[in-house]
Amino acid sequence: MKPVIILVSPQMGENIGASARAMKNFGLSDLRIVSPRDGWPNEKADSMSVGAIDVIQNAKIFNDLSSALADLNFVFATTASSRDINKDHLLSKKIPEFEIPKGKVGIMFGRESSGLSNEEISHANQILTIDTSLEFSSLNIAHAVGVIAYEFFKIETRDDLENAQDLASKEELEYFFDHLFGNLQKKGFFKIDEKTPLMKQNIRNLFARIPNLSKSEIQTLRGILSSFESKL
Amino acid sequence: MKPVIILVSPQMGENIGASARAMKNFGLSDLRIVSPRDGWPNEKADSMSVGAIDVIQNAKIFNDLSSALADLNFVFATTASSRDINKDHLLSKKIPEFEIPKGKVGIMFGRESSGLSNEEISHANQILTIDTSLEFSSLNIAHAVGVIAYEFFKIETRDDLENAQDLASKEELEYFFDHLFGNLQKKGFFKIDEKTPLMKQNIRNLFARIPNLSKSEIQTLRGILSSFESKL
Repeated sequence: MKPVIILVSPQMGENIGASARAMKNFGLSDLRIVSPRDGWPNEKADSMSVGAIDVIQNAKIFNDLSSALADLNFVFATTASSRDINKDHLLSKKIPEFEIPKGKVGIMFGRESSGLSNEEISHANQILTIDTSLEFSSLNIAHAVGVIAYEFFKIETRDDLENAQDLASKEELEYFFDHLFGNLQKKGFFKIDEKTPLMKQNIRNLFARIPNLSKSEIQTLRGILSSFESKL
Repeated sequence: MKPVIILVSPQMGENIGASARAMKNFGLSDLRIVSPRDGWPNEKADSMSVGAIDVIQNAKIFNDLSSALADLNFVFATTASSRDINKDHLLSKKIPEFEIPKGKVGIMFGRESSGLSNEEISHANQILTIDTSLEFSSLNIAHAVGVIAYEFFKIETRDDLENAQDLASKEELEYFFDHLFGNLQKKGFFKIDEKTPLMKQNIRNLFARIPNLSKSEIQTLRGILSSFESKL
């Protein structure tokens, strides 16, 4: 179980470098960065990575979150707390007991100033929260990466949770959303422009939460949509 | 269980500040520093502590280790590995199960360049080791403080992350299925009679799996269906 680490719009190179070092401490190597504020490559990231320069050099850079998640099957969003979002919070200390679905797993971390947006969180299957003191929950991002990588490192090989289904990728789920939102737009579902992003986010949240969504289930969902279109 | 953190001859102010921040994240406040290389106070420690400046300001400075440990009852020494020392290694992940003796507990962390000396370790009752990748075990000191503080924090309990949403009943989910299946029937989605029960079952399976589906989400789903009907 070697999850991909996705840093979303990180601001400081030092934190990217320190994150890479913490990843390597706990056996992780696949780092993806979405829209780093100061561009890429970043000298401060290089120097803070110390012995983990290979992680920095192999990092993949993306311009948008969907591309960064496209090939993943299950995605965690780390947040301090988001009670307004209807997703369960998995506490980091429960990671070793959590039944992580088979397939490619990613963990998103937000920008230093404000974390992940609700829209970004809506791409995730599961929210992950590090249980901190309620009085001071603002963790340095590299520390958050370190703690999560540390917990994943506790999971030795664990192949007892076989799921025979061929899992859908995030990209396939995106096609479904495109299809659904396009149809809803045509049908006048989104009546008030300002509310449209929030409505889309709520719909995303709902479907993103289905565990182990398979390729054939995505086909079913798209078949439902096509069926609604057919007699227009 | 709020252990005292003792940094032994730390070299960089940034690491002292980041250690203080991580301590406060996990509810610790008692920081002791033995012979900081760059003297005290230290501006870099102040700026890296961010919201934990109180931990820095209340830190106690000592010239020798014995004085720093004087009032403690049980002391841990953190090391990457010290197989030549005849003390048990407690792995950090075992902290929540470890029977920590009553009294005042401290945890020592060594200098960035070389950790704790064997002499310094000899002051400890117990060696504490963070289990890292064997290929890259060199943790940043503030990350080490963070992981250990995190494990000690687990000893406390936390029940504040309850999901506040008003959950949908099974009955409400049934209404949705009735609505959906009725529409799909009209639309000719179920082409082959013998396959209809299995197709319905697959669709049910898919939606039934969404954890903690709320009442308002059911409304959203039914709104989508109504929207598709509206222009027939």
